[in-house]
Amino acid sequence: MRLAELSERSGVPVATIKYYLREQLLPPGALITAKQADYGEDHLRRLRLVRALIQIGRMPVATAREVLAAIQDESQDQNSRLGAAVGSLPTGPQPDPEDPATVAARREADRLLDELGWDCGRLAEYPPYRTLVSALAALARLGYPYDTVHLAPYARAAEALAVCDLDLVEEYQGTLEQVEAAVALTVLYEPVLLSLRRLAQAQESERRFVMVKAGGRG
Amino acid sequence: MRLAELSERSGVPVATIKYYLREQLLPPGALITAKQADYGEDHLRRLRLVRALIQIGRMPVATAREVLAAIQDESQDQNSRLGAAVGSLPTGPQPDPEDPATVAARREADRLLDELGWDCGRLAEYPPYRTLVSALAALARLGYPYDTVHLAPYARAAEALAVCDLDLVEEYQGTLEQVEAAVALTVLYEPVLLSLRRLAQAQESERRFVMVKAGGRG
Repeated sequence: MRLAELSERSGVPVATIKYYLREQLLPPGALITAKQADYGEDHLRRLRLVRALIQIGRMPVATAREVLAAIQDESQDQNSRLGAAVGSLPTGPQPDPEDPATVAARREADRLLDELGWDCGRLAEYPPYRTLVSALAALARLGYPYDTVHLAPYARAAEALAVCDLDLVEEYQGTLEQVEAAVALTVLYEPVLLSLRRLAQAQESERRFVMVKAGGRG
Repeated sequence: MRLAELSERSGVPVATIKYYLREQLLPPGALITAKQADYGEDHLRRLRLVRALIQIGRMPVATAREVLAAIQDESQDQNSRLGAAVGSLPTGPQPDPEDPATVAARREADRLLDELGWDCGRLAEYPPYRTLVSALAALARLGYPYDTVHLAPYARAAEALAVCDLDLVEEYQGTLEQVEAAVALTVLYEPVLLSLRRLAQAQESERRFVMVKAGGRG
């Protein structure tokens, strides 16, 4: 298909596609004349993924490029490819090693992973571990709970969702498609999960603080 | 306490505290001389909350100011105060009303909330609903599933966590403390949840793709 059709089918303006091509977020099309290139379904799929990383994942272009490079790195086995691609996604702030709260947070994070039976030694090398420690340190500084008793329901929810996520990834054929799906579903289901949590909080708050009162008056 | 002690106890540099004071993220201290002010435990708690909103919640100063205003708004009942304060937190990108994927996404979102027995009419007015629709539309455009069957496990996880969240909020005494806790815990547990999900995915991927192979060789 020509650039105009790629734009129409993806909903991404032509100028933006040209920018992504210049930034190597999208491979060049096959040249059919000196000035015209032809794009395939692979381009459409890649373009939509780029859009999701940038718009929903709110990634800078340079970060999106690194994630795409990790997706396409064929030098490793499937588990390592999945891990490297998802691990290349940007994470939150890094823990401050000087802060005593970081030490306490790391201890609780390790205790939690141990209790779950997760491979703490391996996972501690994985970028999201640092995000976890940083978030627990912030809870510690504010005086909010961050012990395993309070964290366990979150970890159990995460375990259940990881099974769903991997089931869905395994529905795709081919390693590249699976790695792409793992990245896309990780990024795209994050706002789904967070918005559902806020909606569930509003629903639960209504149930506790409003319905009870209404029942009392009835 | 003096500014220096507030800085030491919070770990926030004096220059940053002065900036927060100028930006009205922090109420002024009680003047004890023309040039010196005294700060209390309320200042310390508020300062840590501001820090959490900006560092962990990655909010611009203007947004943090709006969230603090919502926390302190005493004109409403407790459920409305909780809802308004948490609802004032920044959400993801807004859905594009022109996009056909948005229409399909809204239909699936409404179907999901209906099936859960949540108050769809009320929740559709709540900012996180738009984030949910926007995220579902992105899944739709990429051709990934966003139907109630695939979303239900996420929604059930959200429901279970909302009960934990509100239980924890109710442990705090006083409406202001509860509203502050609701905001802080919403913001601070988000990276906890997302990093645990990524760690759980890595653990589950290892279990499926590596341990099986190792078992096969053994």
